[in-house]
Amino acid sequence: MQRPIAVFDSGLGGLSVVRALRALLPAEDIVYFGDTARVPYGIKSHRTVAQFALEDARFLLRHEPKLIVAACNTASALAMDELEAGLPLPVVGVVRPGARAAVGAARGRPIAIIGTEATIGSRAYEEAIRRLDPAAEVVSQPCPLFVPLVEEGRGCDDAIVRLTVETYLGPLRAQRIGAIVLGCTHYPLLRGAIAAQLGPEVEIVESGQETARAVRAVLAAAGDLCSSAAPGTMRFFVSDNPARFRAIGSGFLGHDIEHVELVEPHDYIASAQLEGQTP
Amino acid sequence: MQRPIAVFDSGLGGLSVVRALRALLPAEDIVYFGDTARVPYGIKSHRTVAQFALEDARFLLRHEPKLIVAACNTASALAMDELEAGLPLPVVGVVRPGARAAVGAARGRPIAIIGTEATIGSRAYEEAIRRLDPAAEVVSQPCPLFVPLVEEGRGCDDAIVRLTVETYLGPLRAQRIGAIVLGCTHYPLLRGAIAAQLGPEVEIVESGQETARAVRAVLAAAGDLCSSAAPGTMRFFVSDNPARFRAIGSGFLGHDIEHVELVEPHDYIASAQLEGQTP
Repeated sequence: MQRPIAVFDSGLGGLSVVRALRALLPAEDIVYFGDTARVPYGIKSHRTVAQFALEDARFLLRHEPKLIVAACNTASALAMDELEAGLPLPVVGVVRPGARAAVGAARGRPIAIIGTEATIGSRAYEEAIRRLDPAAEVVSQPCPLFVPLVEEGRGCDDAIVRLTVETYLGPLRAQRIGAIVLGCTHYPLLRGAIAAQLGPEVEIVESGQETARAVRAVLAAAGDLCSSAAPGTMRFFVSDNPARFRAIGSGFLGHDIEHVELVEPHDYIASAQLEGQTP
Repeated sequence: MQRPIAVFDSGLGGLSVVRALRALLPAEDIVYFGDTARVPYGIKSHRTVAQFALEDARFLLRHEPKLIVAACNTASALAMDELEAGLPLPVVGVVRPGARAAVGAARGRPIAIIGTEATIGSRAYEEAIRRLDPAAEVVSQPCPLFVPLVEEGRGCDDAIVRLTVETYLGPLRAQRIGAIVLGCTHYPLLRGAIAAQLGPEVEIVESGQETARAVRAVLAAAGDLCSSAAPGTMRFFVSDNPARFRAIGSGFLGHDIEHVELVEPHDYIASAQLEGQTP
């Protein structure tokens, strides 16, 4: 039996990363955990996000994955050090792949980063970009209303969405940016409204697509890519509200979600506490 | 030493209830717990909200309160049965006082309830109103963007706030409602925009003010009102991000918050689990 790719997120946004993984690596099995009991992470502190991310990842270790994807931008921005130090397998976050793609796409012009309050506050994208191009100019804009707008089911033609996009991103037009990173897994669902606001000369980078490529590169280097011709399986776990996850999540995944399994608190909180004592 | 009134909320919104308590009962000591690590509750399931609410309340029991206020509308709407069954002291929620005030204010005309997805989905306000007036006509409207709008610091003059209020509440105008219940502790900060949308003939009911009156009535009936002439003390505990709580919370409380204490996960999660085994 092949070992799966494990993916975790604060909630359902990480399904847009799963969608990119399925498109690029259709034979891989995927096991997903969405921490819907404690969502969102984007308004929370470093220590709490790091603790939650480790708990999420350790729950997924039971499925003996070959690699873990931190599909949550906030967790990737705040907790990659803790995840890499605390887990016995490769971890791929969404920030470094997104930063790499942005540097390529911007062709020397300024790069805009949009994300949650915590992601922007962490300056993680900015630092990842500067490691690749120390001269890069980066402008950052938190967009805290985008997640609730998407979760309410509002699309790119909605009047509140259009006004909110204009309010957050209108000021960026004067900066003549070359690329914008959608630094939150919910934002691809507003891509049309963002593109309409910024115009065709701005490249839009979705971290999910870049992350799928990074996962493929890591697995290929380790000789761990699945060689099966059959499509891989998917399993979905959440810490709360499977019905809401199914209803909203299908828009992120691109098709219906048939079955979602509810995880009891002691299965992801207590196990992490016990394991945390013997690292 | 007098015993305090304990107040809990999913985050900082409950500070608007504290403000009402301070105005009505200035001599009472207050101890507050905001579960900012797991906020918001309004998109979560009954079982998770009930579990979190009991953990929040049990943490506050250490301060030997004489009464507990569930200042969170979602917790009051979903978990009052569990709180009353699981706690050894009087519990006052915000739903029943708000429903009582709405019936009085509407004078036979329809009553509108606005709140989070979970509060509206629970139909708790509707049921509380029908127990008081079986013929009452109730219209309900979830307003999921209001909390993030307030937390971002947007006020009643903000263009996105005005458009969102119009989108949610404009359709209510055809219903000729007599009163609207602000069924979420964040909504009083948007009162001006809500009033402008609905016009002067609609009474606006803030559950916090009604809840403070209910607390006074319960304490008076038990002979437990504080007789001191000195102003009471206040202590604030949160499960995450004290700095954010201080910064945003002062707008809810009406004055600066000097000191906020951070609670460790095992202090509110583990204790509830242990106590839960010997109810």
